[in-house]
Amino acid sequence: MKDMSNFDAYEIGFDIPAKPGLDEADIQTPCLVLDLGALERNIKKMGDYAKSHGMRHRVHGKMHKSVDIAKLQVELGGACGVCCQKVSEAEVFARGGIKDVLVSNQVRDLAKIDRLARLPKLGARTLVCVDDLANVADLSNAAKQHGTVIECLVEIDCGAGRCGVTTTPEVVEIAKAIDAAEGLKFSGIQAYQGAMQHLDSYEDRKAKIDIAVEMVQDAVDTLKADGLNCDIVGGGGTGSYYFESNSGVFNELQCGSYAFMDADYGRILDKDGKRIDQGEWENAFFILTSVMSHAKADKAIVDAGLKAQSVDSGLPVVFGRDDVEYVKCSDEHGIVMDPAGVLKVNDKLKLVPGHCDPTANVHDWYVGVRDGKVEKLWPVSARGYAY
Amino acid sequence: MKDMSNFDAYEIGFDIPAKPGLDEADIQTPCLVLDLGALERNIKKMGDYAKSHGMRHRVHGKMHKSVDIAKLQVELGGACGVCCQKVSEAEVFARGGIKDVLVSNQVRDLAKIDRLARLPKLGARTLVCVDDLANVADLSNAAKQHGTVIECLVEIDCGAGRCGVTTTPEVVEIAKAIDAAEGLKFSGIQAYQGAMQHLDSYEDRKAKIDIAVEMVQDAVDTLKADGLNCDIVGGGGTGSYYFESNSGVFNELQCGSYAFMDADYGRILDKDGKRIDQGEWENAFFILTSVMSHAKADKAIVDAGLKAQSVDSGLPVVFGRDDVEYVKCSDEHGIVMDPAGVLKVNDKLKLVPGHCDPTANVHDWYVGVRDGKVEKLWPVSARGYAY
Repeated sequence: MKDMSNFDAYEIGFDIPAKPGLDEADIQTPCLVLDLGALERNIKKMGDYAKSHGMRHRVHGKMHKSVDIAKLQVELGGACGVCCQKVSEAEVFARGGIKDVLVSNQVRDLAKIDRLARLPKLGARTLVCVDDLANVADLSNAAKQHGTVIECLVEIDCGAGRCGVTTTPEVVEIAKAIDAAEGLKFSGIQAYQGAMQHLDSYEDRKAKIDIAVEMVQDAVDTLKADGLNCDIVGGGGTGSYYFESNSGVFNELQCGSYAFMDADYGRILDKDGKRIDQGEWENAFFILTSVMSHAKADKAIVDAGLKAQSVDSGLPVVFGRDDVEYVKCSDEHGIVMDPAGVLKVNDKLKLVPGHCDPTANVHDWYVGVRDGKVEKLWPVSARGYAY
Repeated sequence: MKDMSNFDAYEIGFDIPAKPGLDEADIQTPCLVLDLGALERNIKKMGDYAKSHGMRHRVHGKMHKSVDIAKLQVELGGACGVCCQKVSEAEVFARGGIKDVLVSNQVRDLAKIDRLARLPKLGARTLVCVDDLANVADLSNAAKQHGTVIECLVEIDCGAGRCGVTTTPEVVEIAKAIDAAEGLKFSGIQAYQGAMQHLDSYEDRKAKIDIAVEMVQDAVDTLKADGLNCDIVGGGGTGSYYFESNSGVFNELQCGSYAFMDADYGRILDKDGKRIDQGEWENAFFILTSVMSHAKADKAIVDAGLKAQSVDSGLPVVFGRDDVEYVKCSDEHGIVMDPAGVLKVNDKLKLVPGHCDPTANVHDWYVGVRDGKVEKLWPVSARGYAY
């Protein structure tokens, strides 16, 4: 039996899955593991791409909800700031030292608007999206009350079918109202085409973005003719950033998943028909899981089930192996088919989750590893900050 | 505009969605809401059922991960203790004052076994499941090292296809090894048929449980003939507890979802062909969500998406309304079809999630309401305790 006397088992596992200095083999599962080398290379690559195309990169912090990773994206990837989806996330990023924070979403509840208006006092440039004239007065009142400035982007629904207006006259009407409102500043356009990012074919994605670019160009031109300039024209994700970068109208990217990669994004194809997780981006984000039962010869039960991931975009893929397959999951169990019986109890597998954002959202910690050692233990800082 | 001067908006929302005394209308969304009256009636009803059938009820704490709810189940529902699935959950329940804790799962990692063996020192009777002879020595060594007793149930896979052995000889072999091992006590059988709980038809569920009962009866009889008595024969869920209760061989139930109910369980039928959420159990568990955009006439965008729930068992159902329908979700948005345009921005909806366990797992707080007021703010105590 392994000697446990030097292993502080009661500290590791109760609150945390690992601590810096621990061997990778001793990480407590299930937990999130980041390959720090791959993460850094992804971040640097997208940063270099944006810079060489004259784009700012406002990284999407809702993907990882981590102040540490956002800072890495600023320092290593030259990011200009973050997007996030909730006021409480924005508070976490602002308190964590991020100086430029866009809530790329609508904020309508008066208590949330009140908190948003206080955000500049934490030292962060504060931006929000607007798709309804009725929102402008509420935002203005709160900004006036706190003596702050909220910068507003008018959101265009350019195909995602969620928030946002769909015609240039609506954009102009809201932009003018923002421009006229005390405490607010009209800062441009938000136009993220969220519905096409996961289309497999490059040409299918391009066709959708062409429509979006046309809508945005029309709005920007019309606003300009009315004397309203767009400091920010933002959008673009991991499945489309090259289209926005070459559109001539967007000037800020908002990519998130590129830094981690996941199984669902990994399957989409680049312009040469190659999966984007086979060259464009590296898998840096894994669920580490252990075999906890192998009572049937051809089936291993692992400890990562529905509470260790979101399966909305499909089951996870076992990384780097084609001899075993994750085929089913329940709350706390995953079933891994092991036809040749190669797995043993306590063996560990790295799973590439189907969808990175909601998978990160169920964990409290990222365990950053390099060369077989735990180097970082980063909190999922904004996890639970949903309001 | 609403007067925000008396509303401590900066406290409510950053860390918590509500506090006791707040009007239900002012709860910050998205969050989990419990109808305390319905919760109490469900808990009392199952407690009364178990008592009247001579069964102990070891409630499944992995469903809610809440010390407060487990205590309510002990006090109001006469529960004998809890089950949970992870050592870290067991630690949370034991530290929280639950005196009888079964990890209804395999514990194989040596660091976790070490923590399990320390659990009795927190004042809790400690039980675990075993499906592999090789586990017995590790458990025994750890118990000896800490001078504690770990009670062991042999797990039978009676149809769920996860952990557990499938033959009586295997059960007997493991039971004898446990009985002979220092620091361990053989305490009975774990036999939860997890795969049939959600079959719609009562007769289909009964057919599956009949097989399980036969396997368990054979094991219990054979063990008895060998001088090994089962203090605990445990199993039974919300879709089957009446079968185990009338089996003559089970003596402990392990129900979880009955207390909350969810959309997927709600659809199964009782013996009269009636949905179990229409009489047998009340919906006590909701995701409260707000309309945040209604820029399209027939479509409301709400603030509960994939990070406010798990959709593994289907999308949530809007509670108490048939005029609107939740049809799609992405990370932070839900799309609610509103063909008659009855919803307005900031309107709130109560969603019955598809699957309660992994939905509770993404939240930090339960907001308990009664008569339109917030009465309780309970932490999801064991959320994040996955190790």
